[in-house]
Amino acid sequence: MNDAFAGRNVLLTGGLGFIGSNLARRLVALGANVTVVDSLIPEYGGNLFNIAGIEDKLRVNISDVRDQHSMSYLVKGQHYLFNLAGQTSHLDSMQDPETDLEINCRAQLSILEACRRHNPEIKIVFASTRQIYGKPDYLPVDERHLLRPVDVNGINKMAGEWYHILYNNVYGIRSCALRLTNTYGPRMRVKDARQTFLGIWVRLIIEDKPILVFGDGSQVRDFNYVDDVVDACLMAAANEESNGQVFNLGAEERVSLKDLVELLVECHGSGKYRLVPFPSDRKAIDIGDYFADYSRFTSVLGWSPKVSLREGLTQTLRYYREHASRYWD
Amino acid sequence: MNDAFAGRNVLLTGGLGFIGSNLARRLVALGANVTVVDSLIPEYGGNLFNIAGIEDKLRVNISDVRDQHSMSYLVKGQHYLFNLAGQTSHLDSMQDPETDLEINCRAQLSILEACRRHNPEIKIVFASTRQIYGKPDYLPVDERHLLRPVDVNGINKMAGEWYHILYNNVYGIRSCALRLTNTYGPRMRVKDARQTFLGIWVRLIIEDKPILVFGDGSQVRDFNYVDDVVDACLMAAANEESNGQVFNLGAEERVSLKDLVELLVECHGSGKYRLVPFPSDRKAIDIGDYFADYSRFTSVLGWSPKVSLREGLTQTLRYYREHASRYWD
Repeated sequence: MNDAFAGRNVLLTGGLGFIGSNLARRLVALGANVTVVDSLIPEYGGNLFNIAGIEDKLRVNISDVRDQHSMSYLVKGQHYLFNLAGQTSHLDSMQDPETDLEINCRAQLSILEACRRHNPEIKIVFASTRQIYGKPDYLPVDERHLLRPVDVNGINKMAGEWYHILYNNVYGIRSCALRLTNTYGPRMRVKDARQTFLGIWVRLIIEDKPILVFGDGSQVRDFNYVDDVVDACLMAAANEESNGQVFNLGAEERVSLKDLVELLVECHGSGKYRLVPFPSDRKAIDIGDYFADYSRFTSVLGWSPKVSLREGLTQTLRYYREHASRYWD
Repeated sequence: MNDAFAGRNVLLTGGLGFIGSNLARRLVALGANVTVVDSLIPEYGGNLFNIAGIEDKLRVNISDVRDQHSMSYLVKGQHYLFNLAGQTSHLDSMQDPETDLEINCRAQLSILEACRRHNPEIKIVFASTRQIYGKPDYLPVDERHLLRPVDVNGINKMAGEWYHILYNNVYGIRSCALRLTNTYGPRMRVKDARQTFLGIWVRLIIEDKPILVFGDGSQVRDFNYVDDVVDACLMAAANEESNGQVFNLGAEERVSLKDLVELLVECHGSGKYRLVPFPSDRKAIDIGDYFADYSRFTSVLGWSPKVSLREGLTQTLRYYREHASRYWD
């Protein structure tokens, strides 16, 4: 892995966000020349504190992926692009579908056009999402499952993913997509529920406030600790076998939300939760149980997650207890 | 069917185009209050001659589906919307992906938002396309087949289709999508190959010029005569069983392109063709054989095509021999 990134030029969109900043840290450690691009839109995941301690070892470029001129300039000369910027809130996508489309569709298309014109040799890893599957027909969900998104965000992410596959297939711009499941860990947005529900849970438990679990808490999910997702991104980037491919991420541990909140309380040493009825806007886009079959990614690229949920939650809680003031008031 | 449309207000986007104008004619005959919307962009399918003879029996509104204010006004008070406007050229979508996105994604989303705000009681039939399946894994292709579009147009149409299903599922705005296969007949664009290859073939044979068939002509396709597609649209609109559903259209007859061109020559009484190698830009987005399994549409709504290929081609040739001057110089 060192060989693949040492001395190489790497661009990360959404690079001050959750996964982006963790990936940037790893890439800096591997000796890459890292440029992070981030819009720092307050409602999104970017946070300058996420790169605390490595500020001098990478380049920070504040701009929006919707800014075509900026992106055209930034892709030049890059060996790798980790394309992680996105609008990720499902509810926001329903309230403002056009902004979601601008970021998750149009900007993706214009980034790919910029690569086609200015840097067709680049290798791109696109962060897709399990959300595009919608409500599963069967479990675990593999990559053969139909895509039936249940919100505007899911539809636009589906299109964004396919632009990448298309540009690989038609123009030979090497691209792949990782369909992330629920990812958690240090540097995620915990201020509110916009990025992940687990984020706000972490904040609430640290603030000693009750966690609200929607429904009866029986919904099953899988979770990846961010370090495992960083591994996945690097492996996908460094291997030619990923070109034009779409891979699920996932975890061997599958837990109900009720078991998850109880594990979180256990890891923190205290805390309480309450089951509350689903808000109607959440219920309308809820998908029931979900967990992924990620065996394809394992067999093609050898990836599998290493960090247990207990260990990951413990690390996460430790991080936010220490740095709470950097993530919420 | 008369009951469903007599005295009802019906809006058709792309209403001066191929399918739109044939549908408008039928709706006028059924006693509907028809408004056709069309941008009359010269490269697209709209042609005022397509409504010759019924100009006084419907309302023509020249505007673009990208014009949000226009669409917000026009959807008000409509009982049905046949949403047929689109950028349909695969090659144009690769050369100008942003325009394709504007028309096939953003405008669709804003039409649905207009319906949500101003007319949530409307029933919508969206014209989708078999193109979103990409290169088939198996034949005939049913609605369970994965969507793997091979061009920007296919990706954007896929998103456009899903916005409709989503607005049905989340907001109860009754919508369905018909995945059209190759449609042909009177009033299609025959000036060039932008809409259908069969269009330019019809023009060439009438002009006594050789038809160019790409590859070895062995590719298999299915074809629907436009009157059968009009039936499909009306049945989908009039039945509640279609809500939130996606249906393939298709035909029992499946022919290779070589057999098709020979049938066309036979129907016309003369003509010649040549097999030529695929142009590289076409080859890159070619999908091989395609034909649909449309049994789901038959079993749910009772639709099946009635017009044989021979009969349809004969009608089509007759129309263009008579009206050539209205469709090309």
